[in-house]
Amino acid sequence: MNALKPQEYIDGILSGNRMLLSRAITLIESTRQEHQDLAQEIIEACLPQAGSSIRIGITGVPGVGKSTFIESFGNYIIEEQDRSLAVLAVDPSSSKTRGSILGDKTRMETLSNHPKAYIRPTPTSGSLGGVARSTRETITLCEAAGFNTILIETVGVGQSETAVHSMVDFFLLLMLAGAGDELQGIKRGIMEMADSIVINKADSGNMEAARRAVAQYKNALHLFPPTESGWQPRVTTSSALENKGISEVWDIVDEFIRHTKTKGYFDKKRRKQANYWLNESINQELHNAFYNNADLNASLTTYRHRVQAGEISSYKAAKDLMQLFLDTTD
Amino acid sequence: MNALKPQEYIDGILSGNRMLLSRAITLIESTRQEHQDLAQEIIEACLPQAGSSIRIGITGVPGVGKSTFIESFGNYIIEEQDRSLAVLAVDPSSSKTRGSILGDKTRMETLSNHPKAYIRPTPTSGSLGGVARSTRETITLCEAAGFNTILIETVGVGQSETAVHSMVDFFLLLMLAGAGDELQGIKRGIMEMADSIVINKADSGNMEAARRAVAQYKNALHLFPPTESGWQPRVTTSSALENKGISEVWDIVDEFIRHTKTKGYFDKKRRKQANYWLNESINQELHNAFYNNADLNASLTTYRHRVQAGEISSYKAAKDLMQLFLDTTD
Repeated sequence: MNALKPQEYIDGILSGNRMLLSRAITLIESTRQEHQDLAQEIIEACLPQAGSSIRIGITGVPGVGKSTFIESFGNYIIEEQDRSLAVLAVDPSSSKTRGSILGDKTRMETLSNHPKAYIRPTPTSGSLGGVARSTRETITLCEAAGFNTILIETVGVGQSETAVHSMVDFFLLLMLAGAGDELQGIKRGIMEMADSIVINKADSGNMEAARRAVAQYKNALHLFPPTESGWQPRVTTSSALENKGISEVWDIVDEFIRHTKTKGYFDKKRRKQANYWLNESINQELHNAFYNNADLNASLTTYRHRVQAGEISSYKAAKDLMQLFLDTTD
Repeated sequence: MNALKPQEYIDGILSGNRMLLSRAITLIESTRQEHQDLAQEIIEACLPQAGSSIRIGITGVPGVGKSTFIESFGNYIIEEQDRSLAVLAVDPSSSKTRGSILGDKTRMETLSNHPKAYIRPTPTSGSLGGVARSTRETITLCEAAGFNTILIETVGVGQSETAVHSMVDFFLLLMLAGAGDELQGIKRGIMEMADSIVINKADSGNMEAARRAVAQYKNALHLFPPTESGWQPRVTTSSALENKGISEVWDIVDEFIRHTKTKGYFDKKRRKQANYWLNESINQELHNAFYNNADLNASLTTYRHRVQAGEISSYKAAKDLMQLFLDTTD
């Protein structure tokens, strides 16, 4: 498929050509080395044109109505705010949650046919680290292609929320009224990450329960230590079905962006995130250099057995192995 | 203080000399290189004599009555089970929880004066990684000194439970009746680690609430996927104050040990734990080798700035830095 030259992809992306954007993202997700090399060249060229979007993470357990919410919210962002939108997903290979996320594009019928929206389904496989990296790189390309709003969807039941939280400006948690925290299966730490909690499916017949849930979550959020920027996470309701409360969610995002930009916290957070991903990338490189070192394989196995047999401490074994590693790189 | 030769420590520990055991543990906790070197020599010599104890982790938030429980439970283990006991704590530097843990030895008055018990207060500082390592090394020395039961206490509000869970055979969670999960501030993942939940302070006037709590936690535990060994976590009550339910907790531990030993899972878990700590130690060594590399400092700073400025991807920066790192180790 890659009969094209790097510059053709780059020019195509920068001019907003979706077909070339999609093909470049496919290169990012490929495991073939020549695809990876090509993808990296494209990414590095697009980086200077990236970074100017608002990045929003959206999480919630299956059944909370993420797809319907994103359909309503996305249409509002495009139609009423006159913005352009890319919708991505982080959902590392998990047979449990498969199908609950963007894979089924038809759930977002209006949005997926909108000329100002770009929806990219979940990569179908890969480790969290791999998916997180390809999502960050996809953000770069989408921004370079001119999309100024990025929604990143994830299922709020695993480790992927931390990864998504580390790549977005604003983190939104969708919850349901009337279901206990326990029943909703949301991990406790996730609530602490939320810049806003939206009680979804707050339809006409359900408003009383939704209002109670708002009060409860407001109370719960007050128990958490204040955020660095001083932002107090907002709790609100929405009914994607009845198209209610959607503009209010955008108002919260907008207020948050203005709040954090005024205080310089917006850029500070982006720099911290860049730093975080640099550290993660370095860890990954170190890990690969060590564990893919063929000269070390036999020693590693021997030491592993000795540690498991209680003959040597893990600390001493690691010291010895490190010395061997440094010797092999001479 | 270290006027002694390594062999003097080793002989002292193996003969059960507590004073030398304590001094060796102090070496483990020291940050001075010569103390560390000496400690490592002692640990490696003691390793072959270690490993034959039952290691029990005990967690619960401040106020749940951990110290009083350990006092009762410890005395029962010594007096009724004719075992010897070392009590350690993992509580990495946290001003929030300070004082709630073994620092205050007087809370365990009987136990701390018992000839068959050894209580080691929490190290007063250090990162979680450092404290976890020194605790594992302290376990080794205590086992080599002849203690056949090790209790490791931790406060169930942070990251330290995962570390403790990775160094014990049996993980016990203390809870209170009548306080919601939320109020008790226990992290969700911790309940999943528990081999047993003990509703503490189940005193005479409180039995009804305690029984309800038992039923609730039993239900909750059934929602978790089955453990690898097939062990179904037990829920029971205890009143350290009235010295009730203590022998039942030991019976659960005993049943668990027999269950897992019969199935070979006991040793399998220990091997997995050894493996885990080897991997952690290797990560730590790689991290140190990279970040303490003086030749790399300037480049790391430059790349960090470039990544934060969006001039280069974190992936490309990490690749370049890795090459520089490997070049400096030539």
